[in-house]
Amino acid sequence: MADLQAIVDEIHEKLTPRLGEGKVADYIPQLAHVDPKKFGMAIVTVDGEMVKVGDADLPFSIQSISKVFTLTLALGKHGETTWNRVGREPSGSAFNSIVQLEHEEGKPRNPFINAGAIAVSDLVLAGHTPREAIGEIVRFVRYLADDDAIAIDPAVAKSEQATGYRNFALANFMRSFGKLDHPVEHVLGVYFHHCALAMTCMQLARSGLFLAASGSNPLTGHTVVSKQRARRINALMLTCGHYDGSGDFAYRVGLPGKSGVGGGILAVAPGRASVAVWSPGLNHNGNSLLGSLALEMLTARTGWSVFGL
Amino acid sequence: MADLQAIVDEIHEKLTPRLGEGKVADYIPQLAHVDPKKFGMAIVTVDGEMVKVGDADLPFSIQSISKVFTLTLALGKHGETTWNRVGREPSGSAFNSIVQLEHEEGKPRNPFINAGAIAVSDLVLAGHTPREAIGEIVRFVRYLADDDAIAIDPAVAKSEQATGYRNFALANFMRSFGKLDHPVEHVLGVYFHHCALAMTCMQLARSGLFLAASGSNPLTGHTVVSKQRARRINALMLTCGHYDGSGDFAYRVGLPGKSGVGGGILAVAPGRASVAVWSPGLNHNGNSLLGSLALEMLTARTGWSVFGL
Amino acid sequence: MADLQAIVDEIHEKLTPRLGEGKVADYIPQLAHVDPKKFGMAIVTVDGEMVKVGDADLPFSIQSISKVFTLTLALGKHGETTWNRVGREPSGSAFNSIVQLEHEEGKPRNPFINAGAIAVSDLVLAGHTPREAIGEIVRFVRYLADDDAIAIDPAVAKSEQATGYRNFALANFMRSFGKLDHPVEHVLGVYFHHCALAMTCMQLARSGLFLAASGSNPLTGHTVVSKQRARRINALMLTCGHYDGSGDFAYRVGLPGKSGVGGGILAVAPGRASVAVWSPGLNHNGNSLLGSLALEMLTARTGWSVFGL
Amino acid sequence: MADLQAIVDEIHEKLTPRLGEGKVADYIPQLAHVDPKKFGMAIVTVDGEMVKVGDADLPFSIQSISKVFTLTLALGKHGETTWNRVGREPSGSAFNSIVQLEHEEGKPRNPFINAGAIAVSDLVLAGHTPREAIGEIVRFVRYLADDDAIAIDPAVAKSEQATGYRNFALANFMRSFGKLDHPVEHVLGVYFHHCALAMTCMQLARSGLFLAASGSNPLTGHTVVSKQRARRINALMLTCGHYDGSGDFAYRVGLPGKSGVGGGILAVAPGRASVAVWSPGLNHNGNSLLGSLALEMLTARTGWSVFGL
Repeated sequence: MADLQAIVDEIHEKLTPRLGEGKVADYIPQLAHVDPKKFGMAIVTVDGEMVKVGDADLPFSIQSISKVFTLTLALGKHGETTWNRVGREPSGSAFNSIVQLEHEEGKPRNPFINAGAIAVSDLVLAGHTPREAIGEIVRFVRYLADDDAIAIDPAVAKSEQATGYRNFALANFMRSFGKLDHPVEHVLGVYFHHCALAMTCMQLARSGLFLAASGSNPLTGHTVVSKQRARRINALMLTCGHYDGSGDFAYRVGLPGKSGVGGGILAVAPGRASVAVWSPGLNHNGNSLLGSLALEMLTARTGWSVFGL
Repeated sequence: MADLQAIVDEIHEKLTPRLGEGKVADYIPQLAHVDPKKFGMAIVTVDGEMVKVGDADLPFSIQSISKVFTLTLALGKHGETTWNRVGREPSGSAFNSIVQLEHEEGKPRNPFINAGAIAVSDLVLAGHTPREAIGEIVRFVRYLADDDAIAIDPAVAKSEQATGYRNFALANFMRSFGKLDHPVEHVLGVYFHHCALAMTCMQLARSGLFLAASGSNPLTGHTVVSKQRARRINALMLTCGHYDGSGDFAYRVGLPGKSGVGGGILAVAPGRASVAVWSPGLNHNGNSLLGSLALEMLTARTGWSVFGL
Repeated sequence: MADLQAIVDEIHEKLTPRLGEGKVADYIPQLAHVDPKKFGMAIVTVDGEMVKVGDADLPFSIQSISKVFTLTLALGKHGETTWNRVGREPSGSAFNSIVQLEHEEGKPRNPFINAGAIAVSDLVLAGHTPREAIGEIVRFVRYLADDDAIAIDPAVAKSEQATGYRNFALANFMRSFGKLDHPVEHVLGVYFHHCALAMTCMQLARSGLFLAASGSNPLTGHTVVSKQRARRINALMLTCGHYDGSGDFAYRVGLPGKSGVGGGILAVAPGRASVAVWSPGLNHNGNSLLGSLALEMLTARTGWSVFGL
Repeated sequence: MADLQAIVDEIHEKLTPRLGEGKVADYIPQLAHVDPKKFGMAIVTVDGEMVKVGDADLPFSIQSISKVFTLTLALGKHGETTWNRVGREPSGSAFNSIVQLEHEEGKPRNPFINAGAIAVSDLVLAGHTPREAIGEIVRFVRYLADDDAIAIDPAVAKSEQATGYRNFALANFMRSFGKLDHPVEHVLGVYFHHCALAMTCMQLARSGLFLAASGSNPLTGHTVVSKQRARRINALMLTCGHYDGSGDFAYRVGLPGKSGVGGGILAVAPGRASVAVWSPGLNHNGNSLLGSLALEMLTARTGWSVFGL
């Protein structure tokens, strides 16, 4: 095994001149005002080694990365019947597209595009109040990361709620096909709140470790999901985790990963490590520009790609 | 390592009662008349072990599996500029859809849908005659499999040529956007012929071994591509190799793979083995029904999924 | 001029054996419970002649026919700038499709599909409260028909509001592109209420007479719109008034017309007459099956088609 | 009746400063090299009056205007079964779009978009050779215009044939759905040739006169089609004759019309006159910019709109 700290230091150094590249999400002020030159990276290996660099201990809005956690919760509650409500194929469209939703009668293509994550929020609700469901999600993420300091940023949640017309459109559209069980306002309440989770790279890397370690967190000893389910969530992250840039991410990085519009990416190297990176500037597909590059450099150096040495 | 022969024997035995399930491709007589109860499977490991079961030595029409080989050739000739002509994102549509081609001005989404493979045939031509390009492809596949007996079935090629209106539509459509360099008839001549390659499971498994072994064939010692390119081709197979069922295949099997409408699938377990399976009945996405199932059973038994143990 | 009463009597007689054909709209109970065998027809000529047959004095839910009146109001308020918010091309899609809305960044194709009528409701609001806007619409229709008995059916409006998820999706979608000036709830409040107008065939025929008479109602002497605007509204009704069956209606009937899912159709024979017909059973495009047929028989008998004798 | 000659003279005079506006079609050299400042207009009334202005006696490539004549021929041969192969709804897409063709399994939306006209060429062939079918079309147009000098420009036909990849795509696509009876090359041979008809405004106006006069040409006394069929062809021209600008043309001009990419428009004022106008510069929908404007001015002055005085 290479010296991981040396590797992340080198990545950080090489990217430093490029900090600020990409376009910071600006649809809500809370995201727009983030310093575009922030950069953090953290790795937690299945052996318990932890390395970090840059702003790895600064919380940022994880946004869509949270969809990995809500999917895990929904699968825990509903098992494979989850797939009656959401597919598991790459979408071939922008993250917030409503077109395919019409062709498939309100069933989203996968749980990581907005429509699919809204369907998952509906499944997480499962008869509870939004407050209860949101509480459950927060507790689950704290449990995964073994860190009770993790919390939702209420200003972000409120801003999303106030301006999320596209998501209201998606949810009402699904509702019109009978594909949501709860009121649109409740479902979106859950959705907007879990997307507003604020976490550091280190917290994020720890919370994704169970996916790298066959379903159990080696740091805490907690079994989260079965081996099979861990593999399957990884497969979904690889084929669908980067919207319409998923193929490119697989091609260049070669790891299951999930990006968020806040500039974070959670990547999983099965049997090896969980990695989180954060850099606010996005590429044209809405994924962190330098974050993707950092991960590409990481797998080139470590040979962690799932596709071969 | 488990006893591979025992595993494939068990898979064969378990699937025997289901032979004949699925729908055999019937758009040309040469495919329609195949016995739907044929089933073969072959594995070649990076250590040189070879196991097989059923009809593993019977040639069948590999159809779209050949697209892996022509892509490899095109990348050899054109390097990364290949991606100026074809994307690398899952398509989100049927294998022969023309819709996305219109939205993206004649640039196919990936090299494994029909339009993309036609673009790749154009790149393989590279100024040569169709006869020369077809000869080069056959020689390349023979070289990969180390078997000069491999040949094109001329009756299949002729039938495809005579009825391939949809492919003529796709090629002319791309030509209208200036996205083909050679005459449509030449490009499709190459395309129809490489799809008509007839190979056995064992030949196929051998020819894909370089992808499991970091770009070099351990049986012959030949270096085919760089490590990086082998990983990248695997990534493309995983995200795009099963048309609009690629996500499902990744979810259930967890290996890079490429299917053909003749019922074959080539799957790659990086660092482990190359696997070929053949069963003519197709599922609703046009992928071998029992072939997918056999591979799912294989990875469940061997732990070969790229997504974790 | 033929004897109009004899013609409508004959139409009624010929269609009587077929009453009940087609599919009654059933998405809200108020429409589902209508007697499918109802049939009414009324004609008011520019010379003031009025004929009627069947249930021509029974009120029914005019639904989308009301879009003609709100468009007229919006044009009165905003003139040609109305077309900054809504196009005037046939949609080529179902009445409630959201697909084209995405391709055209939230600008509906025309004012008679649902999305377009919602955009028109937003224009009618023009800073007023929903209550005021709804009041204005009702007063306008009463003025057109010269009948103060015309009213909105509150149960229909309430039902639409409670189940109109698709319309909430459309409105939020437009809002996400900045194409609505007022809150979604206000806009849809107006929309759902004007669609719930209950009118008789005779009232409807009278209210559309200004379109047949160069913009002025010859019965009341009121000038409603200019000659040019009357022509233009007629043009829109002809090209877009029957959703994805507009071409067929033009082909068979040859008159500008607007249908509603309640089974009504308002048709305009420029220079001749205004015609209203009602029969609840719908064809596959969502237009009244027998209503269309009645109008086809009418123009065949009268030579009123705008496309020639 | 106004003095028609004075009206067209005035239109010509008003448009003279704007000659050259719009974008001349440049996909083949024969169209690209046309003088963009040409302008001609001709009117033939049902009473036999003929007026003209500008370059009304200069032949130009009528292109898609010819689709009116081939549709008339196909209806003569196949009657209403014509509609089994082509719809009669506006397309909601660009003239050469292939998208809707996929959604509707190879059945074009209407006979005036490219795909639809190709389907009509297939119907006109009806078992004959392309040469025979082309001969029949030319004879038919000569008969309509009562002018044996009308001919096809072979250089235009040849150019279209050599570069018409999009049309080859459309035809092969329809063929793949079994929606063409003849070989693609034959069908397109007919299509490319009838689009290459060269006619003057005066010839064109005469050839369309039967549509203004209930199916019979009052100049020659020939009955071409029934009254009903004349009305129906007019209806199709109004709803579909200007591609994705048909609604706009109806709104502004108010006449059935068919445009060609050569800059010509044939418009029909039922019961009044047949009008042809030619100005090569096109608007963004591919319709003659000044030609549309000239017709708008004409109907404003004459009151010929079918939608009212």
